[in-house]
Amino acid sequence: MHRTKIKVVEDALDSNNTIARANREDFDQHGVRVVNLMSAPGAGKTALLERTLAETGDLRVGVLEGDVQGSMDADRLASMHVPVTQLNTDPGFGGECHLDANMVRSAIPELPLEEIDLLVVENVGNLVCPAEFRIGEDARVMVSSVTEGEDKPLKYPLMFRTCELVLINKIDLLEHLDFDLERFLGHLDDVNPGVERMPVSARTGEGVDQWRRWLLGVAGRAGPPAAEPVAP
Amino acid sequence: MHRTKIKVVEDALDSNNTIARANREDFDQHGVRVVNLMSAPGAGKTALLERTLAETGDLRVGVLEGDVQGSMDADRLASMHVPVTQLNTDPGFGGECHLDANMVRSAIPELPLEEIDLLVVENVGNLVCPAEFRIGEDARVMVSSVTEGEDKPLKYPLMFRTCELVLINKIDLLEHLDFDLERFLGHLDDVNPGVERMPVSARTGEGVDQWRRWLLGVAGRAGPPAAEPVAP
Repeated sequence: MHRTKIKVVEDALDSNNTIARANREDFDQHGVRVVNLMSAPGAGKTALLERTLAETGDLRVGVLEGDVQGSMDADRLASMHVPVTQLNTDPGFGGECHLDANMVRSAIPELPLEEIDLLVVENVGNLVCPAEFRIGEDARVMVSSVTEGEDKPLKYPLMFRTCELVLINKIDLLEHLDFDLERFLGHLDDVNPGVERMPVSARTGEGVDQWRRWLLGVAGRAGPPAAEPVAP
Repeated sequence: MHRTKIKVVEDALDSNNTIARANREDFDQHGVRVVNLMSAPGAGKTALLERTLAETGDLRVGVLEGDVQGSMDADRLASMHVPVTQLNTDPGFGGECHLDANMVRSAIPELPLEEIDLLVVENVGNLVCPAEFRIGEDARVMVSSVTEGEDKPLKYPLMFRTCELVLINKIDLLEHLDFDLERFLGHLDDVNPGVERMPVSARTGEGVDQWRRWLLGVAGRAGPPAAEPVAP
């Protein structure tokens, strides 16, 4: 029985990957790069995007907003004149806890692929299942906020292992927390040695320029040169 | 196709409920009351339990610790001389994102039901799927930390709707956050009008006495009388 169950899961993931590849081909055809942005609930994905998309130069960014219900985050981002498409996962009882390739596929006809260079997919807030389902993305980014504690890489290893960049958010709160950043980074290296990481604060804007340059890199643009601190 | 899919989900939930009732009967036979403790990752379930279980008088409490992988939380609690049973959900690729009735059933033979009055089940950190699966509990409690933002009840309504008590944790950080508690409580009442709620801080201990008395009530014990503030 156990073996049969595993088999079914593998088949489901295999068909997900097939659809993810089809999504990727569609995005590639339009020259659109795709970032899958994942985190626990309340880690600050939307707040970071608000900061980030306030100035992207000539890079045209769109957002696909995944939520169980509602469109609160999409409304926040739409007010920034960014094209936002809402994808709700709640046709069932409590709603799906992640986006999968087929859900993203169903949204593709609604996406303004001719008008954007980069699509950021804000996944459902969850550290487990989103990591299991590729959606056709070029890069996976996760946001881990320092208020969540140092142990998260060890407790949700697949999520931290499958991403190309970890944004460590809410660092403006560090002085008020019992959070040991070095300990967190050690746990991160335990599950994904050397993975790129950036401390950021959506609230103060710290680190957001660097993250924006990273996005420009994904979209094949050389980012603007880093502003060098001027000696007084 | 769509209708077929929904049907399967309903069947799965129905068989879950059947097993949950069997769990409940087993717990009842031993006179053990069960609390299902749920939250997003990093909201502070374990830290709250550490505070809470430090003094429970003659109430004998056990913990069933649900995690995708590892036993970090169980280790923290075991050092408090509380009987802790670890339940990991990771036989599959990325692990299950919730506990269900059958997983809890598989753990029952390992639980010291003769030696405890109250079992606290610490669910996997996730605001979606744990709300969909009853496990045989008498009461459902969720922890929502103020660092997660005011919008969480509207974004994860099933979770906030299916619980009997909401613990609002990390209130020691309120002064450092742009978090409007009244706004959060308004959203909470939108999805679960009048649900019992308690502001707490696992870090400072604020509110923990009240929450401990609530647990004593679930276990059928009159809690110790509230310490009245003494006028200076």
